[in-house]
Amino acid sequence: MNFLDLLNAQIDKSNSLLCVGLDPDVNKLPVSLKTTQKQLFEFNKAIVDATHDLVCAFKPNSAYYEAHGPEGVVQLRDTIAYIHENYPGIPVILDAKRADIGHTNDQYAAFIFDYLGSDAVTLHPYLGREALEPFFARTDKGLIILCRTSNPGADEFQDLLADGKTLYSHVARQVSKEWNTSGNCSLVVGATYPKELEEIRAITGPHMPFLVPGVGAQGGDVQAAVEAGIGADKKGLIINSARGVIYASAEADFAEAARQAALETRDEINKYR
Amino acid sequence: MNFLDLLNAQIDKSNSLLCVGLDPDVNKLPVSLKTTQKQLFEFNKAIVDATHDLVCAFKPNSAYYEAHGPEGVVQLRDTIAYIHENYPGIPVILDAKRADIGHTNDQYAAFIFDYLGSDAVTLHPYLGREALEPFFARTDKGLIILCRTSNPGADEFQDLLADGKTLYSHVARQVSKEWNTSGNCSLVVGATYPKELEEIRAITGPHMPFLVPGVGAQGGDVQAAVEAGIGADKKGLIINSARGVIYASAEADFAEAARQAALETRDEINKYR
Repeated sequence: MNFLDLLNAQIDKSNSLLCVGLDPDVNKLPVSLKTTQKQLFEFNKAIVDATHDLVCAFKPNSAYYEAHGPEGVVQLRDTIAYIHENYPGIPVILDAKRADIGHTNDQYAAFIFDYLGSDAVTLHPYLGREALEPFFARTDKGLIILCRTSNPGADEFQDLLADGKTLYSHVARQVSKEWNTSGNCSLVVGATYPKELEEIRAITGPHMPFLVPGVGAQGGDVQAAVEAGIGADKKGLIINSARGVIYASAEADFAEAARQAALETRDEINKYR
Repeated sequence: MNFLDLLNAQIDKSNSLLCVGLDPDVNKLPVSLKTTQKQLFEFNKAIVDATHDLVCAFKPNSAYYEAHGPEGVVQLRDTIAYIHENYPGIPVILDAKRADIGHTNDQYAAFIFDYLGSDAVTLHPYLGREALEPFFARTDKGLIILCRTSNPGADEFQDLLADGKTLYSHVARQVSKEWNTSGNCSLVVGATYPKELEEIRAITGPHMPFLVPGVGAQGGDVQAAVEAGIGADKKGLIINSARGVIYASAEADFAEAARQAALETRDEINKYR
């Protein structure tokens, strides 16, 4: 099953556009896990078990695992395998923000899809479509291109005007009109920029899913994001929350607290769908 | 010692602007190493031993190690440690092409500088300076920003004209005029685009080093690249060759062949300095 079908089936099953970001920062883990071997994996397992029926996807960010060297990379692979084995049907998006020249991207694709077993990956647009060919060759995988990022300084280059249009709108146009020949492309658009989200939705049409980070800790407004970005069939958004869900409590009840936060976020999103 | 001083001292010591790219593709390794455990490391060790006096830097590309999961990551760390222990003074540039939002870049910086021990890293510009703050906090490390990449499709976004200037020239201007407050920034400019290289040198002035991939297998011309990009004191270029050096022979003489290819490339570069 390709990524878009997988995603849409899971949205229907969970009645949710919420994606939970699995970004375990060892400084923020519950005390009860601090002495555990493989604490990143054990933390994720508890979060996944507590929230799996409330999400359309899980999104581990590769950086939080790489920071721990090979032991971290093993726990990332184990996390993805755990999700696939125990909750088949839930897509796992690896937030890796990669992009190199073509023959080097072959190696990244091997890491991300073959070794880790991810269903989708986030990619930088800067080198253009040609360089990304090894990713495009994986037509069953989701390719999620950075368009308008959620950070405060996103405007430095993304707002440059070329032919009267911003760089991010050029990216949205190229990806939706030229790159998406296999129907597996998506865009990253920050919830912190609802005006831009609405503009990008108008460019792509209603069927392209957007990965929308920035609600919760980054301050993006759920109502504004949903109203600006919602696509066909009340789908088309993968609204990511990491810190707001996974660190809802730093105590022994962290998994229950994460479930409660995920439930509230899912329901708040659904209120505006 | 900061990255620029380290680099310039090594350029003087080796009389070389050549950087050897350590991108070991298991399908291209010599037969004699195929059954070796840690074959990526053993291959690199032989190449490093054979070429260390001919280079201004080594540049492993992270993708070639990540493709092998945790075992690859260990061999990347071991390669960097081997260079630092045996040939102190040679800077190691990790070609990782990362960039995420700020608090995630903290984790990447921990991986790249603390775990791996790299002296410099390549970064995507798309999220802007603000997101890269955790890298900028490492003022002793080299930060090498993608500007004009060496791949055939680099023009798709990089040539977009904003205020009459290309995106890559905006990146060159921002990095050299605004970002470089600690003097540790550099730009990636492909040898395959000598006209653009000359233009970018005019923007930055003579003191910023450029990492220049694309000679050798990618077809960039050494004379054109040196004449277009050379900086102050006949320095300012880190001219990378990977495949042209490390795969000069696939037989048991691969290390000697790599030395010969490195020697010829160094001397050809010096002819035009």
